Amino acid sequence: MRNKRIKSAVTGLLLLTAVAVADDVTVNHDIIAVELANNAVLLRERALLDNLSVELVESLTTEVGPRRVGTAGDKRAIAWAEAKFKELGFDRVWTEEVPVEHGWIRGEASAEIISPYLHNVVMTALGYSVGTSGDLVGEIVEFADLEALEAVPEGDSLKGKFAFVSYSMADYVPESGERRMAGYGKGTQARSRGHVAAAKRGAEAIIIRSVGTDNNRYAHTGSGYGYEDDLKKVPAAAISPPDAILIKNMLRRGEPVVMKMNMSSEITGPTRGANVIGEITGRSGSENYLVLGAHLDSWDEGTGAIDDGAGVGSMMAAAAFIGQMEQRPKRSIRVLLFAAEEIGLVGARAYYERHEDELDHHLLGAEVDGGGGRAHTLVSGVGEASVPLVREMHKLVAPLGIAWSDANDATGASDMSVLGRAGMPALNFMQNSNDYFMYHHTPNDTFDKIIPEDMRYLTAAYATMFYLAAEMEVDFRK
Amino acid sequence: MRNKRIKSAVTGLLLLTAVAVADDVTVNHDIIAVELANNAVLLRERALLDNLSVELVESLTTEVGPRRVGTAGDKRAIAWAEAKFKELGFDRVWTEEVPVEHGWIRGEASAEIISPYLHNVVMTALGYSVGTSGDLVGEIVEFADLEALEAVPEGDSLKGKFAFVSYSMADYVPESGERRMAGYGKGTQARSRGHVAAAKRGAEAIIIRSVGTDNNRYAHTGSGYGYEDDLKKVPAAAISPPDAILIKNMLRRGEPVVMKMNMSSEITGPTRGANVIGEITGRSGSENYLVLGAHLDSWDEGTGAIDDGAGVGSMMAAAAFIGQMEQRPKRSIRVLLFAAEEIGLVGARAYYERHEDELDHHLLGAEVDGGGGRAHTLVSGVGEASVPLVREMHKLVAPLGIAWSDANDATGASDMSVLGRAGMPALNFMQNSNDYFMYHHTPNDTFDKIIPEDMRYLTAAYATMFYLAAEMEVDFRK
Repeated sequence: MRNKRIKSAVTGLLLLTAVAVADDVTVNHDIIAVELANNAVLLRERALLDNLSVELVESLTTEVGPRRVGTAGDKRAIAWAEAKFKELGFDRVWTEEVPVEHGWIRGEASAEIISPYLHNVVMTALGYSVGTSGDLVGEIVEFADLEALEAVPEGDSLKGKFAFVSYSMADYVPESGERRMAGYGKGTQARSRGHVAAAKRGAEAIIIRSVGTDNNRYAHTGSGYGYEDDLKKVPAAAISPPDAILIKNMLRRGEPVVMKMNMSSEITGPTRGANVIGEITGRSGSENYLVLGAHLDSWDEGTGAIDDGAGVGSMMAAAAFIGQMEQRPKRSIRVLLFAAEEIGLVGARAYYERHEDELDHHLLGAEVDGGGGRAHTLVSGVGEASVPLVREMHKLVAPLGIAWSDANDATGASDMSVLGRAGMPALNFMQNSNDYFMYHHTPNDTFDKIIPEDMRYLTAAYATMFYLAAEMEVDFRK
Repeated sequence: MRNKRIKSAVTGLLLLTAVAVADDVTVNHDIIAVELANNAVLLRERALLDNLSVELVESLTTEVGPRRVGTAGDKRAIAWAEAKFKELGFDRVWTEEVPVEHGWIRGEASAEIISPYLHNVVMTALGYSVGTSGDLVGEIVEFADLEALEAVPEGDSLKGKFAFVSYSMADYVPESGERRMAGYGKGTQARSRGHVAAAKRGAEAIIIRSVGTDNNRYAHTGSGYGYEDDLKKVPAAAISPPDAILIKNMLRRGEPVVMKMNMSSEITGPTRGANVIGEITGRSGSENYLVLGAHLDSWDEGTGAIDDGAGVGSMMAAAAFIGQMEQRPKRSIRVLLFAAEEIGLVGARAYYERHEDELDHHLLGAEVDGGGGRAHTLVSGVGEASVPLVREMHKLVAPLGIAWSDANDATGASDMSVLGRAGMPALNFMQNSNDYFMYHHTPNDTFDKIIPEDMRYLTAAYATMFYLAAEMEVDFRK
């Protein structure tokens, strides 16, 4: 029976009708009607077999590539997204301009150890760093983490020196209970505030060990957006993990380690990006809608396949699959592709400012910004009254290997958290991030890192949950 | 008993004496005397706990780094090796100059796709390629492998084009029975002869997918040493696997893919390197000796940790451990650190020319040039009369997880095969190459890729076998 159903589902979209099918879960049909549950199962099984999400990532990374906000690549990405939404049959497609305070030119970055041993160092500018105005030479002073650097009294004790924060991102921090993200949080402290701490102690530059879990010889970029006006603007750069290890091994020999660096980065004037929105308009109109988010921008050295092509592909595909059902869902679904996430959720904040008055019309939201790995746990962030319903809906994605969490504290990932923290009901599908933090923000974030089956599982989870939520007249508000 | 023995062995070198110990193998003591077997076990267990091999790789990669033949790094490596041999108590240490026909300047290499989509391409010059004399623009024409390129009739049909050999190195070729190396052999066909095949068909350049098993965004360099005098010298370069995949994905869309490349590589005049030799002089003098080989040179973008720092570290350490026994072994052991392996066994050939008349004095040889992974199978390459003895010796390394092969066709790996093919008795310890072909010849070949325990296992295997062979009056000749 199960095989037959799957086979039917893949023979064409028109077969995604409300035929009665058995399933390996027992849904309470007082909460989710038989026909709706059956449709959800058909949709889920079809999504598992349809490679659209992967094809979208391939298209975006091949035909557009890197797309940092304000660049020509970003403009091509916006045009790509509009065209794809239309091609996929979305009913309404539009863009909303996002002003960005500064543009930035990456330029070139090079570094070498000139004493006690000669070595090239793989280094990359952190986003929105100033350049070095030619060669900059300094002795490296190591700090275990940002806290250790901030423990140095303010003044000029680091004059002539490069502050080197050697913190190695923990893959797993036991106390946090959440795999990977906790170590990332600690790692990004020096990435986002290190240049200020270094400047206050007179350092010539701040160098951090890349925030990542790999030992590949790439530096992970990322944003340290924002200098303080009354402080010296010190160049900020990340070095690859192997180079950080090499420097630590030199330092433990006891001799001064001297580095020369040269970065031609440059902060430029105001620029702009755009949030791109596609809507599958529901049978009851556009006034209320569920929102599926991802960010369209990427860093500039890879092609942004896992960060966040995977989110773009899975969310566009999930909504497209729902739009390809026999009839439109009751309520609308909007895919929000945010601008300028990488420089601090700038697109999401602009969206919130523009739509603050309509927050109540955002019935439920979620975002993928953790790569193309499978979801492993569903966390709701809804009113207590609707928790039992979401739990019932969860039964229809549980066969994808997704557990249920009772926390009910989800606010939506990344951009979506701006809306979630403001009160919008949200779901978080916690993902297996696979090797996300091995690749993200490096030249190595390319299409070949996408695992197609995992992407299909991820997409199926979102399609199923949001189809169910769009078909039901439930108020998820807290 | 076992625990006690290990404990004794690590308390100090002086405890490596011929105390009677039990072991988990049954050795025929008519072939290997009790005392000798016991010493071998003590040596093996001590080597498993001593990190010297790893420390040597750390020292070489930190204090010297890249060391392509003829460069300043190579000269520092030669001085490093001489000093280390002496420090480790080798009795005789010397160098033998190796003339090299050409030097080479890598210069810079950059490439981008300029149509139909704009992309940077990660590319590296293949060793000893000519440069491009400024920007070179060409349409990419894909060939599945060198054979496909060579199937094009000679002439000028590829004028204005870049020949792109997209062969992806197979990790395992079923017919070969030998993991990894077979795919490498096929991959290196285009790397070593592609520039000739391309020139004979009028192509402007030869571009190959990197010969490696990874999907990291590094190009693997390697040598295509040697242009033919009467042919146009076309630039030869490797691109990273993700870039090769990207280009294939563009090509299947049906539009011409046009690439711009620029390489400032330059072939220069004659240069030189040196083989560095360290000897543990046996009780019966220097006239006859067993030889442990590795190559001291490396490619120039990483620090040559796995290729071939691992060989240098394991072979120096294995011989040093033998030299630290209570008395010198009966026969001498020489560690041969070869120059210029990477450009075609140039150091090994020079060694052979110089020592051809003394080939009979080389009693047994082996080389490590496959990274720091554990040995999994021992293959002998000795006279039939001594096979039973080597089999008996094998029992003392079998506890390291090493199988026995009946093939008896070993010639020694890499450099050592020059001597092995000329008739020197040899052993091959086939290794688990781990991720050797993911890292080798890239910027990513760095110390952090060494797995310390595996290096200790590898070193213990060589120390044990060569100690036994040095203590016994056996003629391994064929």
